[in-house]
Amino acid sequence: MIGTADIEAAAVRIAPHVRRTPSWVLPSSALQIDGPPFEVWLKLEQLQVSGSFKARGMFNRLLANPIPAAGVIAASGGNAGIATATAARALGVPAEIFVPTVISPAKRERLEGLGARVVVTGAVYAEALAACEQRQRETGALMTHAYDQPEVLAGAGTLAREIEQQRGVPDALLVSVGGGGLIGGIASWFAGRTQVVALEPQGAPTLHRALAAGEPVDVEVSGLAADALGARRIGALAWEVVQRHPVTSLRLDDAAIRDAQRLLWQSFKLAVEPAAALPLAALRGGAWRPLEAQRVCLIVCGANVDPATLA
Amino acid sequence: MIGTADIEAAAVRIAPHVRRTPSWVLPSSALQIDGPPFEVWLKLEQLQVSGSFKARGMFNRLLANPIPAAGVIAASGGNAGIATATAARALGVPAEIFVPTVISPAKRERLEGLGARVVVTGAVYAEALAACEQRQRETGALMTHAYDQPEVLAGAGTLAREIEQQRGVPDALLVSVGGGGLIGGIASWFAGRTQVVALEPQGAPTLHRALAAGEPVDVEVSGLAADALGARRIGALAWEVVQRHPVTSLRLDDAAIRDAQRLLWQSFKLAVEPAAALPLAALRGGAWRPLEAQRVCLIVCGANVDPATLA
Repeated sequence: MIGTADIEAAAVRIAPHVRRTPSWVLPSSALQIDGPPFEVWLKLEQLQVSGSFKARGMFNRLLANPIPAAGVIAASGGNAGIATATAARALGVPAEIFVPTVISPAKRERLEGLGARVVVTGAVYAEALAACEQRQRETGALMTHAYDQPEVLAGAGTLAREIEQQRGVPDALLVSVGGGGLIGGIASWFAGRTQVVALEPQGAPTLHRALAAGEPVDVEVSGLAADALGARRIGALAWEVVQRHPVTSLRLDDAAIRDAQRLLWQSFKLAVEPAAALPLAALRGGAWRPLEAQRVCLIVCGANVDPATLA
Repeated sequence: MIGTADIEAAAVRIAPHVRRTPSWVLPSSALQIDGPPFEVWLKLEQLQVSGSFKARGMFNRLLANPIPAAGVIAASGGNAGIATATAARALGVPAEIFVPTVISPAKRERLEGLGARVVVTGAVYAEALAACEQRQRETGALMTHAYDQPEVLAGAGTLAREIEQQRGVPDALLVSVGGGGLIGGIASWFAGRTQVVALEPQGAPTLHRALAAGEPVDVEVSGLAADALGARRIGALAWEVVQRHPVTSLRLDDAAIRDAQRLLWQSFKLAVEPAAALPLAALRGGAWRPLEAQRVCLIVCGANVDPATLA
């Protein structure tokens, strides 16, 4: 269980290594969202070091622990691996990254460009994770988990702290969910002071299924955002957080996600990956509607996208 | 001659149609700039409506004048044409856009997608302009000039006003120069209160040559940023402004510009066109060096780039 003190400590620890990303205020009409007008805060976290919010958690994990000679090791659908490799390089330690075969070419090239040893194994994240855990037992490297470690949630929580410092507490905050590291950190920081809306693709509804079942359950993953949001089961830590601080859980189809991703490029010149487009998709499609004049924060969480796919 | 009152009036006029773009503060070290540390303000104007600062001037031009039944007409290397077409569509009037043959495919497609009639003619901007002027005499349409009309400078000046509202007056401001519309507006607003550094590609030094000659002279244009910065001669209005408010004029080679453009994509996930990368290129290559701890604003002026070229 993490609290605001853990997030404050993480913020101090990672400050020299991460960026304070812009929070961009726009009227809902500018984003082609129908209905009564409200205020949108686009938190442009895709401009973060490593191209996603994951750098916050990974720097915190590495800085809060002694790092063995074997360095660090991670299994990741992409962003967590890139963030781990980025943090390892910045701190001068070796990194070994296990990834499933659905990884995009752009993400794999980026990992190798960061100096990491990349091991491609398993159709889904969980299989890459099992191979990674075995290897970790052999080498003793410090493992970073993509979403289910206290330091990772605390690091992600610094994003919420930064939003509050920049513009105060929003009336609602919309965020994508994969394994739950980001929402776990955000909900821990706000602790019920804002409405948190958890968004998942139809093809990877780990939180939605857990809420329906009353406990974390395994799901099959597929679809557009599977490489970033394709965890098989919601993390234990995030599950614990949403028990204490309930969230609204919604699922979105791939067509709506792709539409929002395209709008962000074509009309805003923001290059984002599909996983980062769920908050806008939820508002544009009417899956979730704020009240008039509310202040709604959308987390734009990552940009690890092959730019050629945006055209 | 425009003054701050014209810029204030423009800001009121265009406010419902343009975006207040983020000003992102970063330490110089984050941008891999060597030397004593200073503070960078990246003014992310490539996120503006139409993908560049030009929307400010074109909305101001259209809103400040009666528009004939023939609509509006423009000649443009790309961004001014896109901004004119965007403004015309928003205001419900027809647009006819003349462009030189160096226009990028992405920009031409965008113009057509905005509903404009596109006429491709002439190897350089000046030739497209001559054809446009002839057509304007036939139809009586309201012409928007890419950089040499008072309303266009006043609109561009609202960018400087916005920077001052957001963070105060910087110690220096670095900006790319094509025909001078942007620097004319910016220098008019600050009126000597900040050091303005004018940056041009080696292949299109309209201001640099004018300063050397003591008056505007024609130059041959070529190179990476020619489609956006390839005016043949500095605008008369901008020339008048820089006589009153002197600027520092520097030229940069294409390799440095390309390097800065790549860094902005690879490390910051900012998709920008070459013309928008000159300010960072000047700082990274050491062409211009601020004093320690100074606050230096970089105008990131446009993103009309084919994303496939960023990879």
